[in-house]
Amino acid sequence: MSTGMETRGEPVTPANTVDDTTVDIAALLERGRTLSTPVLKAAVARLAPPMDTVAAYHFGWIDAQGRPADGDGGKAVRPALALLSAEAAGAAPEVGVPGAVAVELVHNFSLLHDDLMDGDEQRRHRDTVWKVHGPAQAILVGDALFALANELLLEIGTVEAGRATRRLTTATRKLIDGQAQDISFEHRERVTVEECLEMEGNKTGALLACAVSIGAVLGGADDRTADTLEAYGYHLGLAFQAVDDLLGIWGDPDATGKQTWSDLRQRKKSLPVVAALAAGGPASERLGELLAADAKSNGFDTFSEQEFAARAALIEEAGGRDWTAQEARRQHAVAIEALNGVDMPPQVRAQLTALADFVVVRKR
Amino acid sequence: MSTGMETRGEPVTPANTVDDTTVDIAALLERGRTLSTPVLKAAVARLAPPMDTVAAYHFGWIDAQGRPADGDGGKAVRPALALLSAEAAGAAPEVGVPGAVAVELVHNFSLLHDDLMDGDEQRRHRDTVWKVHGPAQAILVGDALFALANELLLEIGTVEAGRATRRLTTATRKLIDGQAQDISFEHRERVTVEECLEMEGNKTGALLACAVSIGAVLGGADDRTADTLEAYGYHLGLAFQAVDDLLGIWGDPDATGKQTWSDLRQRKKSLPVVAALAAGGPASERLGELLAADAKSNGFDTFSEQEFAARAALIEEAGGRDWTAQEARRQHAVAIEALNGVDMPPQVRAQLTALADFVVVRKR
Repeated sequence: MSTGMETRGEPVTPANTVDDTTVDIAALLERGRTLSTPVLKAAVARLAPPMDTVAAYHFGWIDAQGRPADGDGGKAVRPALALLSAEAAGAAPEVGVPGAVAVELVHNFSLLHDDLMDGDEQRRHRDTVWKVHGPAQAILVGDALFALANELLLEIGTVEAGRATRRLTTATRKLIDGQAQDISFEHRERVTVEECLEMEGNKTGALLACAVSIGAVLGGADDRTADTLEAYGYHLGLAFQAVDDLLGIWGDPDATGKQTWSDLRQRKKSLPVVAALAAGGPASERLGELLAADAKSNGFDTFSEQEFAARAALIEEAGGRDWTAQEARRQHAVAIEALNGVDMPPQVRAQLTALADFVVVRKR
Repeated sequence: MSTGMETRGEPVTPANTVDDTTVDIAALLERGRTLSTPVLKAAVARLAPPMDTVAAYHFGWIDAQGRPADGDGGKAVRPALALLSAEAAGAAPEVGVPGAVAVELVHNFSLLHDDLMDGDEQRRHRDTVWKVHGPAQAILVGDALFALANELLLEIGTVEAGRATRRLTTATRKLIDGQAQDISFEHRERVTVEECLEMEGNKTGALLACAVSIGAVLGGADDRTADTLEAYGYHLGLAFQAVDDLLGIWGDPDATGKQTWSDLRQRKKSLPVVAALAAGGPASERLGELLAADAKSNGFDTFSEQEFAARAALIEEAGGRDWTAQEARRQHAVAIEALNGVDMPPQVRAQLTALADFVVVRKR
């Protein structure tokens, strides 16, 4: 049995359908960051003090003492997708910028609130906002980022911007539904694979789908085109989340910025766990017994690395790790397939394909 | 020196400028409730479990055990204003309903989050959501109500609905700014009267202003009309908040549903406090010394009724109570004056005037 991802090579190797070897992913992500960050910073600067400072800390622009920092602002997959989305509709990438920023604002609103609700103390290798600035600021700044996202789009004042805001609002509602499901699952003994996929579709798929449609909508795309792009984004989101679920158990803390066995510590009913419990067989049954006992245990918080490692090993033995890697590949394939439903410049198609490949092979 | 509102009659008696004696305020509030509540309930029913239940508890439709309840849903001033707003623009009151519901959703989003941030355990004579369902649900359901507000307006799909959503978003941002200011004031020794009025304008004026413009915007009113209606609503909001600040110290707990000396217990830098501190003189100076000592005291949480009563008496002696009652009358007058800037049916003008009068004489 393997003990880490590196011993079996990349866990999720997608079957490419387009030659995307010429696409420079780093440049694509960098373009998204370069075009959207100044607009994001200007938007955050609108917040009343001390919310502007707290938000700047969250985004990694300053440290806890207020000194300028060159923090890790995340992978920036969503901004890159929003710009490609505009290009998919034949518009300039810049047309997608307000959409990219609005999606980032909503994403970070959810991170601020989720970290507080989940009690997560670390994100992107730094203390989370509620740890540094207190729960009230985490709530307040989250609210402010959410409002700012809508404000930024609606002040464009066009019919397209109204449609974009509506899609973003729908995605945000699903995001919130997904977090509600995620929290409720932590208190339940059993969750079906279908329930878990629905939760992850809400929590991750919906906003990624919005990122891939919002630029196109701002660029004047019709609803059918936007819906098809959303299908790509939704399944890409599910692939993304399946990989996240693998990293949440077997990821390298140095790369992910999270604790070892992070999702197990939080009793997350993530895909590998749910699939392992559904698989049947001795390892699956033993895992079920262990997790049921854990749920009643008062000593859970003092579990050693070995105890979490034993649970991770059972999940793997029961097939939860393999199943999740396969699920990531399956969702990746469905996402790529959806791209065929939209007429777009070949270079944009190759870039969207390459980004999908990147999402499933990432290690952080 | 008086010891309670009742000993000096109504604290705030407005000078009416229109004969509104024929307006039935109860019927006006009831109409707002009757038309908006079914739409509000249908919107809340869209939320994923358990958020729908938590929201229903917050609105008073069920009790903590999930049994149907006929709770106190608040005064419903905002829905009444939103329907009058539509009529002010010559539209049917029903045109204002989605606006009324959206404003109520945003108002309740802010209540859910503010109660948690402020640690308030009681609202409308009942335990607050975070007390009954936990902090995570208070955050999550607040977020969901905010998103729902935008969703409800944007799914109308008209240009007017886009403009209405933009105004609501601006108001929501101000609301959040106001809460941020309110929290920061609690940690400061001195706050100027101007800072306090700015905070209250953000926290209460902005959303009331939106309630009074949103129906008109949905009914096709131009920006000038909407802005003028907002001026009425903004100053009405400041009058409303001045009365709230009086009730927050001297209100009857049986009527307000809050604890005695509620705002003093929370160290709120509300208008009576700030005005008293700014007034100068022996009572003002003694109050300043006491509050400065309180800020450093570890025993604050165990203060007796008498200790709060002593602070309230000093605030009154320094003139903070009278000043705030005058400020309510002044803002009321400015609000009524603003109505002259809009051409509207005389009956609607009389009703808006009567509602303004009601707001400043209320006891809860």
